Amino acid sequence: VTTRRSSSFVEVLVTPTDGSLFGLLFTPDDLWKATSDGAWIEAMLEFERELVGAQADEGLVPQHTADLVDRATRTLQVEPSDLARAARSSGNPVVPLVAALREAVGDRAAGAVHRGATSQDALDTAAMLVVRRAGRVVLEEVRRAADRAADLAGEHRSTLITGRTLLQQAIPVTFGLKAAGWLSSLSSAGRSLRSVLDHDLALQFGGAAGTLASLGPAGVGVMSRLAGRLDLADPGIPWHTDRVRMSKVAASLATVAGAGAKVAQDLLLLGQVEVGEVTGGKGGSSAMPHKRNPVEPVLAAASARRAAMLAGGILGSMAHEHERAAGAWHAEWQTLNELLRATGGCATNIRLALEQVQVQPQRMLENVVANRGVFMAERVIADIVLDVGWERATTLVAAAVDRTIRDGSTLADELAEDDTVGRIRTRAQIHNLCDPATYLGASGEFVDRALLEHRREWGTGG
Amino acid sequence: VTTRRSSSFVEVLVTPTDGSLFGLLFTPDDLWKATSDGAWIEAMLEFERELVGAQADEGLVPQHTADLVDRATRTLQVEPSDLARAARSSGNPVVPLVAALREAVGDRAAGAVHRGATSQDALDTAAMLVVRRAGRVVLEEVRRAADRAADLAGEHRSTLITGRTLLQQAIPVTFGLKAAGWLSSLSSAGRSLRSVLDHDLALQFGGAAGTLASLGPAGVGVMSRLAGRLDLADPGIPWHTDRVRMSKVAASLATVAGAGAKVAQDLLLLGQVEVGEVTGGKGGSSAMPHKRNPVEPVLAAASARRAAMLAGGILGSMAHEHERAAGAWHAEWQTLNELLRATGGCATNIRLALEQVQVQPQRMLENVVANRGVFMAERVIADIVLDVGWERATTLVAAAVDRTIRDGSTLADELAEDDTVGRIRTRAQIHNLCDPATYLGASGEFVDRALLEHRREWGTGG
Amino acid sequence: VTTRRSSSFVEVLVTPTDGSLFGLLFTPDDLWKATSDGAWIEAMLEFERELVGAQADEGLVPQHTADLVDRATRTLQVEPSDLARAARSSGNPVVPLVAALREAVGDRAAGAVHRGATSQDALDTAAMLVVRRAGRVVLEEVRRAADRAADLAGEHRSTLITGRTLLQQAIPVTFGLKAAGWLSSLSSAGRSLRSVLDHDLALQFGGAAGTLASLGPAGVGVMSRLAGRLDLADPGIPWHTDRVRMSKVAASLATVAGAGAKVAQDLLLLGQVEVGEVTGGKGGSSAMPHKRNPVEPVLAAASARRAAMLAGGILGSMAHEHERAAGAWHAEWQTLNELLRATGGCATNIRLALEQVQVQPQRMLENVVANRGVFMAERVIADIVLDVGWERATTLVAAAVDRTIRDGSTLADELAEDDTVGRIRTRAQIHNLCDPATYLGASGEFVDRALLEHRREWGTGG
Amino acid sequence: VTTRRSSSFVEVLVTPTDGSLFGLLFTPDDLWKATSDGAWIEAMLEFERELVGAQADEGLVPQHTADLVDRATRTLQVEPSDLARAARSSGNPVVPLVAALREAVGDRAAGAVHRGATSQDALDTAAMLVVRRAGRVVLEEVRRAADRAADLAGEHRSTLITGRTLLQQAIPVTFGLKAAGWLSSLSSAGRSLRSVLDHDLALQFGGAAGTLASLGPAGVGVMSRLAGRLDLADPGIPWHTDRVRMSKVAASLATVAGAGAKVAQDLLLLGQVEVGEVTGGKGGSSAMPHKRNPVEPVLAAASARRAAMLAGGILGSMAHEHERAAGAWHAEWQTLNELLRATGGCATNIRLALEQVQVQPQRMLENVVANRGVFMAERVIADIVLDVGWERATTLVAAAVDRTIRDGSTLADELAEDDTVGRIRTRAQIHNLCDPATYLGASGEFVDRALLEHRREWGTGG
Repeated sequence: VTTRRSSSFVEVLVTPTDGSLFGLLFTPDDLWKATSDGAWIEAMLEFERELVGAQADEGLVPQHTADLVDRATRTLQVEPSDLARAARSSGNPVVPLVAALREAVGDRAAGAVHRGATSQDALDTAAMLVVRRAGRVVLEEVRRAADRAADLAGEHRSTLITGRTLLQQAIPVTFGLKAAGWLSSLSSAGRSLRSVLDHDLALQFGGAAGTLASLGPAGVGVMSRLAGRLDLADPGIPWHTDRVRMSKVAASLATVAGAGAKVAQDLLLLGQVEVGEVTGGKGGSSAMPHKRNPVEPVLAAASARRAAMLAGGILGSMAHEHERAAGAWHAEWQTLNELLRATGGCATNIRLALEQVQVQPQRMLENVVANRGVFMAERVIADIVLDVGWERATTLVAAAVDRTIRDGSTLADELAEDDTVGRIRTRAQIHNLCDPATYLGASGEFVDRALLEHRREWGTGG
Repeated sequence: VTTRRSSSFVEVLVTPTDGSLFGLLFTPDDLWKATSDGAWIEAMLEFERELVGAQADEGLVPQHTADLVDRATRTLQVEPSDLARAARSSGNPVVPLVAALREAVGDRAAGAVHRGATSQDALDTAAMLVVRRAGRVVLEEVRRAADRAADLAGEHRSTLITGRTLLQQAIPVTFGLKAAGWLSSLSSAGRSLRSVLDHDLALQFGGAAGTLASLGPAGVGVMSRLAGRLDLADPGIPWHTDRVRMSKVAASLATVAGAGAKVAQDLLLLGQVEVGEVTGGKGGSSAMPHKRNPVEPVLAAASARRAAMLAGGILGSMAHEHERAAGAWHAEWQTLNELLRATGGCATNIRLALEQVQVQPQRMLENVVANRGVFMAERVIADIVLDVGWERATTLVAAAVDRTIRDGSTLADELAEDDTVGRIRTRAQIHNLCDPATYLGASGEFVDRALLEHRREWGTGG
Repeated sequence: VTTRRSSSFVEVLVTPTDGSLFGLLFTPDDLWKATSDGAWIEAMLEFERELVGAQADEGLVPQHTADLVDRATRTLQVEPSDLARAARSSGNPVVPLVAALREAVGDRAAGAVHRGATSQDALDTAAMLVVRRAGRVVLEEVRRAADRAADLAGEHRSTLITGRTLLQQAIPVTFGLKAAGWLSSLSSAGRSLRSVLDHDLALQFGGAAGTLASLGPAGVGVMSRLAGRLDLADPGIPWHTDRVRMSKVAASLATVAGAGAKVAQDLLLLGQVEVGEVTGGKGGSSAMPHKRNPVEPVLAAASARRAAMLAGGILGSMAHEHERAAGAWHAEWQTLNELLRATGGCATNIRLALEQVQVQPQRMLENVVANRGVFMAERVIADIVLDVGWERATTLVAAAVDRTIRDGSTLADELAEDDTVGRIRTRAQIHNLCDPATYLGASGEFVDRALLEHRREWGTGG
Repeated sequence: VTTRRSSSFVEVLVTPTDGSLFGLLFTPDDLWKATSDGAWIEAMLEFERELVGAQADEGLVPQHTADLVDRATRTLQVEPSDLARAARSSGNPVVPLVAALREAVGDRAAGAVHRGATSQDALDTAAMLVVRRAGRVVLEEVRRAADRAADLAGEHRSTLITGRTLLQQAIPVTFGLKAAGWLSSLSSAGRSLRSVLDHDLALQFGGAAGTLASLGPAGVGVMSRLAGRLDLADPGIPWHTDRVRMSKVAASLATVAGAGAKVAQDLLLLGQVEVGEVTGGKGGSSAMPHKRNPVEPVLAAASARRAAMLAGGILGSMAHEHERAAGAWHAEWQTLNELLRATGGCATNIRLALEQVQVQPQRMLENVVANRGVFMAERVIADIVLDVGWERATTLVAAAVDRTIRDGSTLADELAEDDTVGRIRTRAQIHNLCDPATYLGASGEFVDRALLEHRREWGTGG
């Protein structure tokens, strides 16, 4: 590894080139930076820096040595690809990074570098720092997406839209309720992620095999100091082969992506020209100038697919052998980083999509009207069942539904012409029964509840 | 669907036959029962029963009708395979189950059955009930496994064992620390699962498209009553297409299985004849009478693989279309049920394995001795680095390590013969430096912390 | 294990009860039977029967002993759940099954049972037999689905439909081309599966650790005979820890399911009421009598999701330790069986869906007309680009597209009124350029090619 | 997108920086390059270049225009990150790449660029080219790894080693047979991959929605020419939404990785210090100078885990909507590229591991001797069963096994002292029965078969 001195190594290192062609298409720049090679190297150097600092605090290392190491970690410059190649012989990037740092500080201070630690301490702790930083970027996007969903829910609390189950028209709902569902899902997924970022990220520090033996009786003191300096929780005992923490990180990220995927799916379906209930896609095509592609929902949907896959990979790699895994640990690194990017790519694109979407209440209404009351059948049955019994009610309404569909009439008209119904209900009663706008149940209250919950949770929006 | 009357339908339904050949091999009987077809049918009927009860509470249905339905849900007997075949035309088992229940209660009461609800309400709520019941079985197994790990950690707080990283000998640790790591992981995974069981399971109730419209203004009142009757949380708003809840259930189960997989892996490796540090496998072979196969760890490892896969499937199916998914929901049912079984199979087999394992401290010590001090190199370097500098210390010790391995001597002897080391350290100092028993760092304290944490968490063990 | 004598053990064993509630909803009866506990037990007994037969052929066992064992394998009756429980102590069902068989044949013949074999031989070979039988059921469904797709492709070779990319209207295509795409995909996925069934299924036979040592020099001869008797390929060398074969089985099944998932997705989208280009859903709802749910595509989509997950699990379990895996093998059994069921469930439901679907050419045409020529923009640009240059052509057409959408006119009218276009093209030319029916390119030829390929492959359909 | 002119754009573009920290640690440089942003951009430009060339061949474009475009595709320089950012508005990198190319050729030739094609044509075809090039690198590594396995199998055809099942000692085998198993698995996985590279890679070309309409009657001719120019198969009909091809690519890669994972697993287990049957690890540790970490098997194992996960992701993304997927397609790009890298990382590290491994026949023998004949129990039973019956034989031998283990004697001695055995077998017979070297069955023949098959397949090695 070539080391070079520079006043600002990070700026150089994060220049994204290779790997960005697809990556930066899905992932926003700030998250890309927070998960770049530079960010990882910086986080590992941060661990090494604070480790020496903590030992100076505990009187194990002279302060001037700690200062020397501190400076070196701020000026050391490494080329990620050089580091990677150098790492092939040891199997992880910490070995050559520590070697470079030791070279930079000179032989007398070299022994103070990485003292008491093992590669996994540096890399697992760096992962926690990267997760925290990148996770906050993701969380902010989730918050903004949820805020926008809250706005939509509030604005369209009473906007009539066709409810659809199994992609078929079901009964009327409101667009506000739909948005409230998105809100509720994004909000609770965000809450899980925030809880993980706030409570589950902890220092990893155990030395060669988790005993901190090389620090003698000072080990747990250094551990506590180091956690404090990095602003990470002190885990109590090393967690190098206990991957519950990693599993929770992965699951909370994938859950955020899954909540986003639902929004993406709905926006894509609502935005079909034949449905037309939302517009706002601006994506161009290489072949078709008329296309208004819903690019953001598409990118969000793609990112969410990847996030679930990647989280599954982490959940499936928890069986770490003895005091360090022979592969399962190594498989985490890229997977975790891609998972952060995929989740953030999903959250960002959902936020953008929700900001750009143009709701088309008129078209929603037209689609409701075009249903001709067929989807009010449930209500009619419930209304007449006490008068005519279950069997009769369902048979009779089903027949009216069939005639409505066949003849292009309305359910109200068909029911009005039915002898049985005509006898027990007035024409006005029938028309009221078949009016979608009077059949929204608790939609409004559900919207209010979701908004309230959101405000409680995030103190914003709606 | 053929309906038959019987005084105890559950007993009949849960007779496991087909599907049990592999299933019951991995999964204990009580969990099998809690996730059987009978358990699901019972849970769906429970939803239907309490739904009518809640409406009677709210004055929407006469009490005698509620009583009639109540009785019917307790005596209705359905053959799961008949139900499944009947369900093919509607795509879910609730439709024929409700039809059977309506037939059982007669035409006048039929309208009160399933009133206000949709299939997904019954099935999602049933899933919550099954998860709660089966989850508690799983959790109890986790608790017992953790208790046993705590016992082992306490008993072997000072039992010397070789620490191994990347499947190579690293530095000495204690078997107690190893067991404390298992304990800590099982305990925190169990805590996550308990949290989900306690806080994330909620009633699903929204009617045809999540508005509760068919119940008119009474909807939210019924919702609240129904939640109370089923002892599930009132979710505030329907979550039919918000799968965050399902994702958390799945992730917490897979995390438990992952924690178990780590224990299984270690037991398998420690139990290799060439290592011999644990014994206790009792598994016979169809071909080899001398085999003492570690059956429980093997079954646990297999179950954990499946659990991760299944949880990944649920995380990847969160994009539910509009007001009911066209496939993603349907894919959850078997996957969730298998996930409960796989996780429980893992937890149970880990508990059994930990109960049966026979620790071999003598063999652990022999393996430590056989290392001939080579793994003390780290300590020696740290000790002499201030005297001779980093470069010199590492070079010199590495050379001594090479000689030790080549000549079958001990590291202490090789170091004692080294001119540099001989000058700065006495023979006694060198032997002490190379004594594994004096190089256990914070192992004991970490064990104590894990035991304390476990007692705080579970109020048991250790 | 209780053994009972009966003349037809299979009939009893396959009575599906537990596990069928969800399973039989997705999977057809014949495939369910072919993957039942009874089918697996029968396949294992078949291995044991032919193993003794092969040894009799080679003169290693007296013929009367072979006859005795033969009879016992045909009359032995075991309860799968008993077998499963008995298998817990050994970790696989072969151990108690062989014990039961030995008990049934009596002490003098017991030594001839399972001689030379190990549990994995019986179970892996049984898996091959089950895959072959179940695979053929799946393949037949694929063939029938492909035939039906071929019919649709032929019938609708010229039926105009809107082509849609990213769920937006793109350019006109034909429904025949769409169906030809389904056909081509189902056909090539089916070809892969058939190839695996025909060429990759092989006997597994290696004895305790893959050497056939217990049979002495007769081993390879027995191996060859046994393969012949089971009509499986002789693998040349045992493959107990070489899971390439299993990986190919899994991948070919998931590929079939993936091809089916595409058809399901399209049918669901075309069948939306707002699109209305196919009808035929017959699924009822528990709440809404008017629903015509597309149940088969939904069940197919759900099955395909599960198939991909399950295949991923098998691909991820190929690292079998030494001469028999400690978990990765055991994780295959249920996963493979569920994969067969999920794939068959997908194929069957796709076949049913394609048989039931009612194509609505009139509605397809209406949707094309409703586009008002906007999606002909690509063609217009290509036509005028040589006259006016790329920049001008795209700008001009994009403006006309915007006006068309804004004003609800047609693209032809807007272009005709454009000065530039009006100068270089006649009104008739413009209208021809904007006529979807004249812009179908190679659609017809592609249909013909797919039909030809299908007939070559399967000798049927179209 | 900034376009710059340069004589050799590729050299610049492939400078790997960001994303290489972890990536280049696992993946060799040549494969990294073959899957770099530069490689993808080059492949897309190749599609665009040959597309114009094919149209010139067909007389649709003047040759001088084709020459102009040809030059531009060779000199155009794009910064991947710029391209990625520019692609965010369209959702794929082809749109801005084509725009840059059109700008480079000037307005008069711009219309000839990308004519008749859509983004997916360029990207899917580029994927095929990248898969072919990267796939060949992977395949060459597999071949070399298989060759080395063949060498080991041949050299150690008779080297005694302990066979191990479920990580317990089973019966003796040879190291040659173990290596032959690796060989057979690598060889058959390689064969699958080669078959896919040779037969399943095809041009994708269909235009906006798969009809080639914009090329009029010339479409299929251009398609055929273009396939020829790119040396890819002519698929007959466009496969943009038929992902069977992609599924086969993914599955064949994951299968290679799975075959490699088995080798890695065995090397890791054999290389444990307590087993010691292979050595050769050279990996250093950041904390422990004595470590000889088996880095290559570890990196291979990690890569294989990722490969299975990534392939699962592709298998699960086959349901592409209508004429272009809204997400499932986009999720493929990174996943496929990472899969190529992971598989190549696995294959390369296995090849390196097999090249470096030092077999320790003496240690293998010592471990066999240390078993004290216990694992010959199977053979003894088989030998005496005809004399004493099954029940007696197993009971008696099991008791002798127990005494052997308890007393640290040998099975031969214990059997010799048994009255029954002593009566029916001489001491010499008993010792021969318990001699592992005479109980290797068909090991040698299986090795010969694997070598023969390998030579047939690859014409090399062994």
